[in-house]
Amino acid sequence: MKHIDVCLTPDLLHLHDVDNTIVVVADVFRATSCMVTAFAYGVGSIIPVATVEECRNLQERGYLAAAERNARTVEGFDLDNSPFSYMDERLDGADIAMTTTNGTLAITKSRSAVKVLVGSFLNLDAIANYLRGQSYDVLVLCAGWKGRVNLEDTLFAGALADRLKDEYSMMEDSVLMAHRLYCDGKENLISYLAAASHIRRLQRLGIQKDIAYCLQHDLYDVVPVLRGNALVKMEL
Amino acid sequence: MKHIDVCLTPDLLHLHDVDNTIVVVADVFRATSCMVTAFAYGVGSIIPVATVEECRNLQERGYLAAAERNARTVEGFDLDNSPFSYMDERLDGADIAMTTTNGTLAITKSRSAVKVLVGSFLNLDAIANYLRGQSYDVLVLCAGWKGRVNLEDTLFAGALADRLKDEYSMMEDSVLMAHRLYCDGKENLISYLAAASHIRRLQRLGIQKDIAYCLQHDLYDVVPVLRGNALVKMEL
Repeated sequence: MKHIDVCLTPDLLHLHDVDNTIVVVADVFRATSCMVTAFAYGVGSIIPVATVEECRNLQERGYLAAAERNARTVEGFDLDNSPFSYMDERLDGADIAMTTTNGTLAITKSRSAVKVLVGSFLNLDAIANYLRGQSYDVLVLCAGWKGRVNLEDTLFAGALADRLKDEYSMMEDSVLMAHRLYCDGKENLISYLAAASHIRRLQRLGIQKDIAYCLQHDLYDVVPVLRGNALVKMEL
Repeated sequence: MKHIDVCLTPDLLHLHDVDNTIVVVADVFRATSCMVTAFAYGVGSIIPVATVEECRNLQERGYLAAAERNARTVEGFDLDNSPFSYMDERLDGADIAMTTTNGTLAITKSRSAVKVLVGSFLNLDAIANYLRGQSYDVLVLCAGWKGRVNLEDTLFAGALADRLKDEYSMMEDSVLMAHRLYCDGKENLISYLAAASHIRRLQRLGIQKDIAYCLQHDLYDVVPVLRGNALVKMEL
């Protein structure tokens, strides 16, 4: 039986051997939800970069650029970190460079995996369906917040483990914990997350609408995958 | 209001500033449960050391020595890692040197804290009562398993947060997660832990009796505290 495991933050990635594993990176609020939305709306590619400087360099070379730090858009960039900004026909076929506080770093740290996929509640079923057809173990890498664990990405990991539980065993405590938290909270994720730190951070910024959107399950049949240094939409 | 936070594994301790914090180290299966039991039965002091070699050096200088690696007793030492081994009147007043896979390392990594306390379900109420009288924030450091998170130490952290919830706020997601897992599992911790990795490891070694013992709440009114390089029983 294949295994599914969860790395609760990129600061624990050194404990995992990702070389024979498919990594699913989740930064539910909001980087990976933005990426999934962007591909659903026709974006051509997204280059995740770790630093604002790299992002600016790509912007100068003609990419549409999105940079977020501490949940706010960095000045001088084209796109912010709200998924609604990516529902724009002008982005059809566009190549985007993106850096965020946590999510893009998690992607760039996973490069040695068999495949790096981008997960969110929005494409939960698409990810689960794709993985069912693969022979590799799965590691869900939660982007967290500056090295710390967060509840929303952990809940996504638990949701994916729940969808895959007939075909993937949960041997490690991190995946058990994520799965139990998801089962505990799934009836009302918004209220379950109400006390979480990043929710409070986002609410201070007035983006409850983004939160509700990012918690919707299975909106898009899209699996973004890292090819070289760019994310592209996988042909399903 | 004071804060309580949880560090889910020593590999995340770099994210926490422990200098103005009381750290409660938990290695429920079984190091900190052994320590609490030992003090309840009259042991004088316990020196936690990180390596088997240091432990052997102290043994040669006259200490009773306990060394565990991978849940097994290392050959040539006086005591094993079962709490029942510490219910022995010959240990009354004795000085013990101890090294374990995870627990003693967590203690030695926390030295810069205001105080380092040793927690387990066995002395949960004693720890909570002591903390209520203190003015410092609290960090529960879960010993985990070789850097990974584990369910049993996380449940202890959640149990302590639950006891302190009227006086300590839970601002970080790690403590929220621990608290929710404890609330989810507290009615029957043994069955809640049945699928956990270390339980399976211990059951292969045939020590179900230790597991049931270590999950009992509030057996001893004992708070072990680090003084210099030795744990001693705090005068309450």
